[in-house]
Amino acid sequence: MQLVRLGEPGSERPFVRADDGTTYELGGLTADIDGGFLAADGIARVAAALAAGELPKAAETGLRVGAPIAQPGKVVCIGMNYRRHAEETGATPPTEPVVFMKAPDVVVGPSDDVLIPRGSTSTDWEVELGVVIGKTARYLESVDEALEYVAGYVVSNDVSERALQFRTAQWDKGKSCENFNPLGPALVPASEVPDPQDLGLRLWVNGEKKQDSSTKDMIFSVAEIVHHLSQVMVLRPGDLINTGTPEGVALGRPDPKPYLRDGDVIELEIDGLGRQRQTARQA
Amino acid sequence: MQLVRLGEPGSERPFVRADDGTTYELGGLTADIDGGFLAADGIARVAAALAAGELPKAAETGLRVGAPIAQPGKVVCIGMNYRRHAEETGATPPTEPVVFMKAPDVVVGPSDDVLIPRGSTSTDWEVELGVVIGKTARYLESVDEALEYVAGYVVSNDVSERALQFRTAQWDKGKSCENFNPLGPALVPASEVPDPQDLGLRLWVNGEKKQDSSTKDMIFSVAEIVHHLSQVMVLRPGDLINTGTPEGVALGRPDPKPYLRDGDVIELEIDGLGRQRQTARQA
Repeated sequence: MQLVRLGEPGSERPFVRADDGTTYELGGLTADIDGGFLAADGIARVAAALAAGELPKAAETGLRVGAPIAQPGKVVCIGMNYRRHAEETGATPPTEPVVFMKAPDVVVGPSDDVLIPRGSTSTDWEVELGVVIGKTARYLESVDEALEYVAGYVVSNDVSERALQFRTAQWDKGKSCENFNPLGPALVPASEVPDPQDLGLRLWVNGEKKQDSSTKDMIFSVAEIVHHLSQVMVLRPGDLINTGTPEGVALGRPDPKPYLRDGDVIELEIDGLGRQRQTARQA
Repeated sequence: MQLVRLGEPGSERPFVRADDGTTYELGGLTADIDGGFLAADGIARVAAALAAGELPKAAETGLRVGAPIAQPGKVVCIGMNYRRHAEETGATPPTEPVVFMKAPDVVVGPSDDVLIPRGSTSTDWEVELGVVIGKTARYLESVDEALEYVAGYVVSNDVSERALQFRTAQWDKGKSCENFNPLGPALVPASEVPDPQDLGLRLWVNGEKKQDSSTKDMIFSVAEIVHHLSQVMVLRPGDLINTGTPEGVALGRPDPKPYLRDGDVIELEIDGLGRQRQTARQA
């Protein structure tokens, strides 16, 4: 099963998609797919209700697909976390996770426009495995227990404006422009992802494949990232972690780099987590 | 008048303190001091209700003082924004604002403990002028209009763990530890702050004055910061901007640097915005 939120921006409602593709309403079980729902073992309750045939089939079709979780309390990003991406950008592979932040309000739906900031010349794509936290993680004792704190996984596009990112030494300025984090289409429960370190992930621009890698190439695994972050901040239910992008971004190409232009179509997918499709538009 | 939130963590309720020191309940007017309240001209409605004598006096006393705004959608920080602080850290003064982020969930009340992260050897203080956004700011056309988007001002302690901050090139890792942003005691409406560039700000540790400066020493003014940020992100009502700290942090002292130790008492104040007092405790 997969959890989705459908409806207009700010008015999304929760649904579950069963393995046979049927969509069911979750409104009787929770108002939203948020930290409170995840902390209260919401995913298990949905699975039980689905198995018991207690959920009403969704009446509506054609609703906009929103981000599959409510606005996170925080969006933590890991930089330079794929070996071949570190190579393409000329960086030395990090010896511990590089951590930066995105503003939580830039999370949008998987089909919403990617907005090119005014004056931007270097808006770039980044397909990433998104990790959604399911319970509070604070000073975890070992990497072995870290995955117990993950509610599920999601496709994430960590859109980046490279000129802004590198205008000063701190990357955040180029990471939180409007609509810079398409998320979804679905939150896939962790129990349905046998190995988060064996997922293919791909991205296309205008039909041309740009990124094609596997989470096997990560320098720090999901478990190592969750454990590490829990030593330096409190991870809370509903928080999102973007775990880094593989090679194939525009930044890594020879000049003139093929940054996004108005009208470009970006598609991205991760094995078992679904597919996004956005159009780049001038803000 | 000043807006405050009183009550236990997560259960704070809104109040207003009149100029004569009397505290009135705001529960009949709004559920919280948050983005929705600020966007709906809440401060003007409070002022009108106060002037009309419509607000009930607060019955309770001795309540904990919480952060004066609900958890922000984002906390944007400006680095190296005081001339003499740039000097003390050996940095070249920036030619445009250096932007980094704090996780919004590290905002706590002005008297809550500063928690020293486990394993930390270099937890540092930073008194800062906090700016709370009152209406959505997106691609502002000029610096001149920027202050119209500010709801009010607040004392902010941008607590920082220097080893984590500099472990990689990205500072965020040392900025979002648990309880790392004491905020308050009050949100002072912008209309009651004649000139945000003429405010003295001071910080003491165990009674010894460590920071003593003025917002006159800022490299980028509040108006310039708001204008600049609006070009690279959407600022929304209830967002918090920490505008940088003046000289006098532990990082700027000769070795051995006097970083915070368990039991240290930190006090900080800004002219007209009130005073904080925290105890440093081992997490």
